[in-house]
Parts: sequence; C-alpha cells; structure tokens
Amino acid sequence: MKALVIAAGEGRRFQEKGYKGPKPLYPLLGLSLIERTLLTLREAGIRDIVLVVGYRGEEIRSYLGSGEQLGIKIEYVTNSAWELGNGSSVLAAKEALQEEPSFLLTMADHVSSPEVFKRLLEVRPRGQEVYVGADFKLSSVPDLQEATKIAVTDGKVRAIGKELEEFQAVDCGAFHATPALFEALSQAQAQGKHTLSDGITVLACQGQALVCDIGEAWWIDVDQPEDAEIARKLLLSRLPSPRDGLIARYINRKLSVPLTAFLAGTRITPNQISVCSGFLCLLAALFFAWGHLVWGGLLAQLASVIDGVDGELARLKFLASPFGELLDSVLDRYGDGAILIGMAVAAFDGKTDPLVFAFAALALLGAPMSMLMKEKFRTATGRTYLPEQEGVLVNLLLGNRDGRLFVVMLAGLFQAPFVGLAVLGITPHLLALFRLNMMKKIIKTR
Amino acid sequence: MKALVIAAGEGRRFQEKGYKGPKPLYPLLGLSLIERTLLTLREAGIRDIVLVVGYRGEEIRSYLGSGEQLGIKIEYVTNSAWELGNGSSVLAAKEALQEEPSFLLTMADHVSSPEVFKRLLEVRPRGQEVYVGADFKLSSVPDLQEATKIAVTDGKVRAIGKELEEFQAVDCGAFHATPALFEALSQAQAQGKHTLSDGITVLACQGQALVCDIGEAWWIDVDQPEDAEIARKLLLSRLPSPRDGLIARYINRKLSVPLTAFLAGTRITPNQISVCSGFLCLLAALFFAWGHLVWGGLLAQLASVIDGVDGELARLKFLASPFGELLDSVLDRYGDGAILIGMAVAAFDGKTDPLVFAFAALALLGAPMSMLMKEKFRTATGRTYLPEQEGVLVNLLLGNRDGRLFVVMLAGLFQAPFVGLAVLGITPHLLALFRLNMMKKIIKTR
Repeated sequence: MKALVIAAGEGRRFQEKGYKGPKPLYPLLGLSLIERTLLTLREAGIRDIVLVVGYRGEEIRSYLGSGEQLGIKIEYVTNSAWELGNGSSVLAAKEALQEEPSFLLTMADHVSSPEVFKRLLEVRPRGQEVYVGADFKLSSVPDLQEATKIAVTDGKVRAIGKELEEFQAVDCGAFHATPALFEALSQAQAQGKHTLSDGITVLACQGQALVCDIGEAWWIDVDQPEDAEIARKLLLSRLPSPRDGLIARYINRKLSVPLTAFLAGTRITPNQISVCSGFLCLLAALFFAWGHLVWGGLLAQLASVIDGVDGELARLKFLASPFGELLDSVLDRYGDGAILIGMAVAAFDGKTDPLVFAFAALALLGAPMSMLMKEKFRTATGRTYLPEQEGVLVNLLLGNRDGRLFVVMLAGLFQAPFVGLAVLGITPHLLALFRLNMMKKIIKTR
Repeated sequence: MKALVIAAGEGRRFQEKGYKGPKPLYPLLGLSLIERTLLTLREAGIRDIVLVVGYRGEEIRSYLGSGEQLGIKIEYVTNSAWELGNGSSVLAAKEALQEEPSFLLTMADHVSSPEVFKRLLEVRPRGQEVYVGADFKLSSVPDLQEATKIAVTDGKVRAIGKELEEFQAVDCGAFHATPALFEALSQAQAQGKHTLSDGITVLACQGQALVCDIGEAWWIDVDQPEDAEIARKLLLSRLPSPRDGLIARYINRKLSVPLTAFLAGTRITPNQISVCSGFLCLLAALFFAWGHLVWGGLLAQLASVIDGVDGELARLKFLASPFGELLDSVLDRYGDGAILIGMAVAAFDGKTDPLVFAFAALALLGAPMSMLMKEKFRTATGRTYLPEQEGVLVNLLLGNRDGRLFVVMLAGLFQAPFVGLAVLGITPHLLALFRLNMMKKIIKTR
C-alpha cells in the first residue's frame, strides 16, 4: 500500500509569525512535521510514499532525500500550481498512483496517532469509493471553526466544507482513496474548484464518499504555531504507559516527560539513556556501600525517573527497537541487583548479620521475579498478562520497578537500609504467590 | 475438521500372545493405544472424532465414554461386519461423514507423531481426491514385509497393497480423505473386496489417490506385542529436547527417561513432579547450610534429573499446560536461589567473608539471567532465540540449568562451596554479555 502525502502549501500563518523555513520542516519535539507524518505512516505499516511538493519544494526534497534514512521510499511529485488549492496537489499525483487499487492520503502538516491510519487501513474502498477519515469527537477538536466539517447520513458523506452549519464529524485530513478521486478532482477543477473538499463533494454527490470513523484516535491540523504547541502537549500527554505503577504515574512521569521533551531536541538516543540509568544505579549502589545513604537513595530514585525516559524518547521519536527493549530490561536487572548489594553492604555496616544476608539474598531472588513471570506467562499462553484486579495490591507489594526503587530512596533518606532490604526481600515473594494463583485462574477461565 | 478412527478389528496376534482385552485398550506408557491416537489427533488440532468399533466395541465405548475427559467429542459407529475387513469399517462411517468436505482417517492401533496428521492437514483434497499418508523412509519401517506398500508415479498412487514388488513408499495408515472414498469402497465391496487398500486401489485407477509425503514424521503399526515394545522405545527416544545442554543430554536424560517411563504408568502428574524437584532443591540447600556438602550436592543433581521428568511426562501423556510451564520455571528459579543461599551459608562457615557475599550475590543475580534474556528476546522480537553457534561455549559458561546444578554437585562432592559460588557468580554474566551481543546481531541481520 502506498500513501500520498501533500506538502505543497505555503503555511502562510507560520510565515506571518516569523518562521522562515517551509512549514513541513517546522520542528516539533525533535522531528519536523513532515518527518513525524512519514514515521507515523511507517508505524502503521506504510513505507511507500508519494510526496507532492510545491512551495519551496526543493528545500523539503533536499532535507528528506530518498527517505532511506527514515526507513521508507519517497517518490517526489512537483505541483507548480500549488497556489490553486490542495486539490490541485492531489491531482498532480495522478500519474504516480492511477494504477494502485487504493492508497492512503494525508497532509504533511497534520500530527496524527498511527491509529488514524490503522483505522483507515481497516476499511477497503471498492470501485469508485473513497473513505474520509472522520472524527466524531467534536468537543476535542481544538479549532472547530477552522475545521472542515462533514454532514453524515448512513455512513456516507452528504456534504463537506468549512462553512457547513449542520454536521456530525470533522474531516481529519486522512483518507483511504481509490484513483476515482483524481477523476472527481478533475471534474471539480473544470468548474474552477480546486480544494480537496471540492473533489470529495463530487464523490459525495455520486454516493461514493464514505465515512471512516477514527474512534478514539487523535490528530491535529497544525495550521499555525499555536497549533504546534497544542500538538506538543498532546504528544507528551500520550507518553506515560497505562501500565504504570502509582509512583511512576504520580511522581516519575512528572519529571521524566519534561526531560524527554528536552532531550527530544538533541541527538541522544534511547539506548544511551538506558545505559545512563544503569550507570546511575551503579552509582547509587556505590554510595550505599560507602555509607552515603541519602545520596544512594536519591540516585536510585533519579535512575528510576531516567528509566522512564528511554521508552518515552523511543516512542516520541519512533526509535523503539527490539534490541533497545532487551538492553533496557537487562540493564534494569543489573541495576536492581547492584543497588540491593550496595544496600546490603550498608546494612552489614562492618558486622556479620545473618538476617541482613538472608534479606539481601531474598531481595536478589525476588527482584527479577515480576518480569520473569510476566514474560513466561506470555510465552506459555501467547497472551499478555494484564489483570485489572491487581491495582493497588501490586503497588503495595511493589510489583513494579518504580515502587521498588521508591522504597530504596526511602531506605536511604531514613538511613534504614535493613528495613528497606526486609521490605524488598519479602514483598516480591508474596506477589509471586499471588500472581501464580491469578495466572492459574486466567489460564483456566479463558 | 473431523477425524475417522477405526478401532473395529480383533487384534488376533495380541490374543494369541495372551492379552485378554480389546487391542485398542492395550496399555503403552500410561495410555491405551486408542487414547494415544485420539490425543495425538487432538494435538494436531482435531477434537471431533467419529470412532468405528466392532470387535468388543462395548468395552471400548464404556472405557472412552463421550471423550470429554480427553477434551474431545466422540461419535460412535458400530460395524458388526468388521470381520469382512477394515474397508467395511470405514464404509460404516459413511452416514456420519458424507456431508464433510474432507476428513482425516486413521487406525486406533497406529502410534504416530502429531506431525503425521499435521502433514496431512497441510494438503487439501479437492473433488474426488484422497491423500494417502506415505512414508518414504523405507529403511526405518520395522516390519517392511507386513507393511502396505505404495507404488508412486508423479505424486499419485499407481498401486497399493501388501504384495507389491516394486514400491517407493509405505502406507502409514493415515489419510486425508473426501467422501469419495465411501463410493470407492462400495465399488470394491461389490467385487467382494473389503480392505481399505481395495478402496484406495479403485481411486488410484481413477487417478484420484494422491500421495502425501510425511517427511521425517514417524509412526508405527502396532500389530503384535513386539511392535508395542518398539513403539515404547520410539516414544521414549523422542523425549529429550534438542535444546538440552551437554550434562542433560549425556547424564540427566539417561536417568530421567527410565524414571518417566516408570511414572507414566502411575497417576502422578507433571506438576507434582515439578513441586517434587523444587522440594529437592530446598532439601539440597538445607544440607549445604547444615554442612553436609556431599548430600547437598547429590540432592541438587537429583533435583536436576527430576527437573527433566516433568516435561517428559507432560509430553509423553499429553499433559503439557501453560500453567505447568509457568509453575516449573518459577519453581526452578526458587530452587536455584535456595541452593545458592545454602552454598553461601556453607562457604561462610561461621566467619564473615565479603568475597563469599560478593560471589553469592553475583550468582543470585546471574541465575535467572539466561531465562530472562531468552524470554525477553522472544517478547521483543516475536522469535525464539535458537542460535546454533552457542554450542560448547554456552555449556562451558553454564548457560543451562543442567550445567549449573552439575557444578553445584561437584562443589558439594569436593567440599568446595566457595569455588562453586565463584564459578556460578562469574559465568552467567560473561554469558549475558555474549548473548546480548549475539542477540543484537540476530536482530540486525534478519
């Protein structure tokens, strides 16, 4: 499947506010608008791009090149008549796409979640049909006045345009089209109408413009710098994982997300962050062993915050990789181990204490158990372990790393490494017992 | 997909040698012949069985019941004319199967690997076609004289029968048939021919009998008690896993397989064996801690042997379950941990030694790393980590549990818990480094 991306317009409002480059190259959290669009398409599985450029097209072209660096293939089409309207830019790609059974169509300056494209890929336009990605969540559209509205009847577009008075949805600038769209645009053009909406209107009159509800997926049309700011906030708000523990959700993410936003503008990679977090754990362990418990505790908590950044940065800049995931989890295990050993040295404090040894050993034994059971459950059943019932109990039993490292910090701040070790030596085993029972039930009932 | 299973014959040779029950109920490694056939079909994904009984059919019926206990559904058909030949028993199922597009057909007294049926399920007979499962590995057929031979031309059966002089393959008693088989059997019957081979001969003349090569899959026709003994050996020889380490392959399996063969005849479950192995680890740990190092070492090695039995028993009696797999790996981790703690107590020997603590901590940290990395690799990439290159190095670096517990035994026998801890504290981390690098390469190249 190919995707047609339109990057031909002037972006006048950006120019008015002093931005000097072509709008598709406007930087947002470490990626230009167009890079983000192309990478979002890649995440939805599309690597063949037809890119229409117009206004300052050469700059865009030399910036993106063949697309190889982004892991995609770009075929360029130039629309010198871009000033007529975005319909003319779509029409310019006719030759490049007329043999395709269907293709996606989107705008370089829209920031979308990959789900928008995934939704559109789930529908299959036949014959002369074109699916219009439609957002029915009207209350969450930032600038409803500027949006292109859609009047919907029985899953079909009845009318489309900015001035519609009665409408149920908003055009999110993404389509699953057939080459029939080019014919419709030609007809509109013959009547002196040059926007994409004019082409869709022609199809709507023929009953061929269908609505594809994008559901909960989000998107935003970056029309002016203020919209970019909204997009930035939206992207950052999506970074925390729904599987976060309480400490991660209410403490760590408040710190890691701004840090990620800052780091996005640099060339630092997620794997470098993983290594950095592992190094901080080692440092925390050494401070514990040297008797500087407060520093040890604070460094452990810092490592915990940084441990969130690698994943956030990877998601934000489309840098997630299986090796990165593997490296992160191996380093986490070593980080945990180092800190527990450091705490044990602190708790020994020069004297032999069998209880310290016992709790340290139990804590070392318990630390990997949570991850191990979840991974093994997945291998054995082919399903992800996501029981909703765990909730607070798992947080109390320190089922996630955020909680465990928070206990380490408290143990450091209160100069109580022995108590910390005791807590970390007992809870993971209670949790393992609880989870074993839970997983048994899940396996039996499904 | 349904399967037709023929269990109507007399099994005369079994009667001659003094066996008193109906042949399909002849016990082999804890399951009757017919149970094994039905469970093998279940493993290949078939749970709807049409079972033709004849000779002492009531006994078979009351033994198997509705099939619910085996997790399948059995529909019984009685062939009172079973003495005519096995073709008449197949024909008796005509009414039960004539509406099916296709179905598998096999004999209750054949012991097969599930791959035989999986191969047959991969081919799709169309129209009047019937696929005959054919074994081209002639040298491995135990009783070639008694076997039904097939002459093959261009993937089709040219002739079939016991007396064939020129042949390329042997009929393994499993078929992927269409209801056309019933028509062919009726035609043969009209000529006074009543074997299944007679029906296949009719189809062969019409060019509708196709050959399905079962490849490396194995099977055996249990015609007499001696064949059951061959089947027994074959089943047991398939129990060791190809991923076994050196110690497992050359020492543990030599002991665990006979033990599994013995336990197969009892009602002991794989999960009970897993718990038993975990308990032995705990016992080994206590003996180490009490200073009885030789006993500790021997018990650890015994636990290692028993750790192979649960999987073998599960595979042999079709008792494998996701929960069993999960339980086994959790218990293994706790067993490892307990033994390492016991060894550390032995190495401390009443005195404080930071080095003992260091190696014990490193060993505890390293013990789960092998499993953890493999599971995580699988989750992250969706592939199983099976690098052939690891070979001897991984055995030297104690990459598998068999090797680690063997070191524990040696440490016990030579009264050297400290050396054992040092080895187990260092090698897993070298291995983790090696594997991380290996996995990185695998992820990049594929």
